[in-house]
Amino acid sequence: MVIGVLGLGPIGESVCEMLGSKSGIRVKYVCCPERPVRFPATVTRELRDLTEDPEVDTVLELSAEIHPALEQVQQCLLAGKHVVTCNKPLLAFHWNELMALAARQGVCLRYGGAAAGGLAWIPAIERCKRADTIHEISGIMNGTTNYILDAMHLAHASFQTALNRSQDFGYAEIDTASDVDGLDSLHRLILSANTAFDVSIPPEEVLVRGIRCIQRRDVETFLAHGFCCRLIASAEHYAERLAAVVEPTLVELKDHEAAVHSNFNLLTMVSRQAGKQSFFGQGAGRYPTAYNVVQDLLDVAAGRAEPPGPPRIETHVDNRTFVRKYYIRTAVSEPWLWSRTEERWETGVITCRLSAQEVHAWAAEARGRDPELFFAALR
Amino acid sequence: MVIGVLGLGPIGESVCEMLGSKSGIRVKYVCCPERPVRFPATVTRELRDLTEDPEVDTVLELSAEIHPALEQVQQCLLAGKHVVTCNKPLLAFHWNELMALAARQGVCLRYGGAAAGGLAWIPAIERCKRADTIHEISGIMNGTTNYILDAMHLAHASFQTALNRSQDFGYAEIDTASDVDGLDSLHRLILSANTAFDVSIPPEEVLVRGIRCIQRRDVETFLAHGFCCRLIASAEHYAERLAAVVEPTLVELKDHEAAVHSNFNLLTMVSRQAGKQSFFGQGAGRYPTAYNVVQDLLDVAAGRAEPPGPPRIETHVDNRTFVRKYYIRTAVSEPWLWSRTEERWETGVITCRLSAQEVHAWAAEARGRDPELFFAALR
Repeated sequence: MVIGVLGLGPIGESVCEMLGSKSGIRVKYVCCPERPVRFPATVTRELRDLTEDPEVDTVLELSAEIHPALEQVQQCLLAGKHVVTCNKPLLAFHWNELMALAARQGVCLRYGGAAAGGLAWIPAIERCKRADTIHEISGIMNGTTNYILDAMHLAHASFQTALNRSQDFGYAEIDTASDVDGLDSLHRLILSANTAFDVSIPPEEVLVRGIRCIQRRDVETFLAHGFCCRLIASAEHYAERLAAVVEPTLVELKDHEAAVHSNFNLLTMVSRQAGKQSFFGQGAGRYPTAYNVVQDLLDVAAGRAEPPGPPRIETHVDNRTFVRKYYIRTAVSEPWLWSRTEERWETGVITCRLSAQEVHAWAAEARGRDPELFFAALR
Repeated sequence: MVIGVLGLGPIGESVCEMLGSKSGIRVKYVCCPERPVRFPATVTRELRDLTEDPEVDTVLELSAEIHPALEQVQQCLLAGKHVVTCNKPLLAFHWNELMALAARQGVCLRYGGAAAGGLAWIPAIERCKRADTIHEISGIMNGTTNYILDAMHLAHASFQTALNRSQDFGYAEIDTASDVDGLDSLHRLILSANTAFDVSIPPEEVLVRGIRCIQRRDVETFLAHGFCCRLIASAEHYAERLAAVVEPTLVELKDHEAAVHSNFNLLTMVSRQAGKQSFFGQGAGRYPTAYNVVQDLLDVAAGRAEPPGPPRIETHVDNRTFVRKYYIRTAVSEPWLWSRTEERWETGVITCRLSAQEVHAWAAEARGRDPELFFAALR
C-alpha cells in the first residue's frame, strides 16, 4: 500500500511513526509544505501529484475543517483512491454525497478515528450489523465537556475555571464552541448513527444544546438529589422513526456514565440480540486517534474494508416522541413552565415528561428573556 | 457454509434461530438425539456423520464440560473442519494442543462467545494487536459473582441470600463453585490473555480466590471507607514478565467498576498507543452468547478468520511483582499479619504493599486456622 497524506499535523506524524517500516504501508507524498517532514517522502503543494500517481492507492485526510477537505477528498475519490479521514464535520455534513461518490468509484472511505478517537467503535458497529439490528446509539462523545463537567462535580470548579483548565491541558479545541456547544458531539453522533442505522441524518434536524450555561449551583443541586450531569448524544431508530438529540442529561450517581471521569468517553449501542454494549476509553488525542487511522489503513490494505453501499435516503429526524422529564433553571417566570412543573429543586424545577422537541423549541425562545437559562434531561 | 452442531442447548437453538434462512449458513446435522429439533436437520448420535461428510465445513461445539468435547473437537479438527466453540474450560486447559492442531490442519478455531458472552471483546483484542501492543487485560469477567456482590452492596443482602437470588434468576451455574470460587473468571482471563499476549498460560499457575467468604460486615466496612468489592481477574505482560491473578478487589466508589451493576461485565485492555479501553455489557446469557457464536461463524464463512499461528511457548506466571495493599479479615491472631498491618478498619486490617504471591500463599495456609478468612486487594 502506498499512501499520500494531506495535512501533516500531530496525528499525521503519529500515524507515520506507528506505520514504521514493517507495516508494508509506504508514505510516498506529504501534501503540507509548511511543516518539516522527518521521513523519506516527497513534500508537495499539489494535490495532483498524489491523484495522478498510479502508485498511490490511498489518501489520508487529517484536517478538521470542511474546506478545502471536501474538494480534496472528492478529487481523490474521483481519481480512484481510497480515503481514510479523521474529519468529523466533513462527514457529518457531506455524508451522502461522499459515500455515494466512493460507492460509484468502488473505493473505501473510512473514518474510525473521526468517530471515536482510539475506541474500537465503528468496526464494532459494522460487525454488529452483520448479525443483529441496532436500535440505539448514545454516549458521552466529547472529552472536553466531560472534563469540564467532571471537574465541576468532583472539584467544585466553576464552568469558566474548568474550561480554562481543559484548555491548559490541551483538551479543548481552539474554538471552544465546537466542544462546549455540543457540535463535536453532534458530528460524532451523526457518524455513529449513520453507520449503525444505515441512514443519512441531516445535521440541522438534530436538537443540540451544550453545557455553556451550567453553573456551580446547578451541579450542587444535582449532587444533593443523587444525580450528576453529562453531555449525552443519543439517537434511536425504531420502526423507521428516528430521534436524535444532544443535550445535558442527569444520570444517577450509581450509573455507568457518572463513573466516566476526566476527558474519557463512553459510547453505547443497544441491539436486539446482544443487548447493551458500551465502549469506554480515550475518544480523542494524538495517539489514540492515530491508532484508529492505522487500523483503518490496515483494513483497507488487507481488503477487509469495503466500498460503501448504495446511497441512503435522507432520513428525517422526529424528536416528538423522544420523551423525558427535564430540569429547568430560569430567573424569569414562564407561564409555559407553570403547568408543566412536577417538583421544585433548590435552583430549578423538574417538569413532567415532555418531548425533546417541545423543550428545545421553548428554550430557544425563552433564552431571549433569560440568556442564562439552563436545562438538562433526566434519564 | 454447512455446519454441524454438537449439543443443542438453549445457545445452540438461539444460534440456529439467528442464522435463519438468509445467512447462507445451513445447519445440516445436530448431534444431540435427546432434544427435539425444530428445523430441517439430520439428527444423529454419531460424530462420524459430521466429520465424514465433505459438505460440512464447520462444527459448532457448545457444551460446558471438557469431556467428551476435547475428543470431539480433536476429531473435527483432524477431519479438517473449522470449529466454533463456547467451551471455556476446554480452551483454558487445552489451549496449546488445540491451537497447534488447528494450525497444522489449516482450519479456524474460534471462541468469541466463550470469552465474553455478547461483547465484541476477542475481535477487538485481535484487531488491536495488528497495530499496537497490549500490556494489560483485566475486568469483571463473571456476571453471577458481580450480581451477588452488587446485591450485597446496594440491597445489603447476605452472601447466601444474594447467591440464592442469582440462582432464581438463572444466572448462577448449577455448580456454583465455578462462579463463586473464581473458576469461570479464570477461564475467561486465560482465553483473553492468551489471545492478547500471544502466550499459553498454565491455568494452575494463576492465583485464584473467589468471593465465598465475603460477609455483610465486610461490605459495610468497604462502603464506610468509600470502596466497593468486585471480583477482578487481571493479567499483565511487560517485558516477558507475566502476572495473572483472580481475586476480590476493592475499587473506589467513583471508579468505573463500581458502576457495573447486576450481572454485567466490564472487560478492559491497556495497550501502548490506544491506552485504556473498556467493554461493558452482557458477558453471558443465551442470546448475547449466541450472537457472538454467529459472529464467529460469519467471520469463518467470509474468510475473515484465520487459522491460529504456530504454537506458543508455555509462559510461566510470576506474581511476585504484582503488588497491592490488601484488606484482610481473620478472627485468629496471625503473627505474619502483625508486622504487615498499616491501618485498622472496623472488621479487618489494611496491609502494606504485598505481592499477590505472598498473600495468596499465606492465606492458603491461614485458612486452616480460620476457614472464614477473607481478603481483597486494594487497587
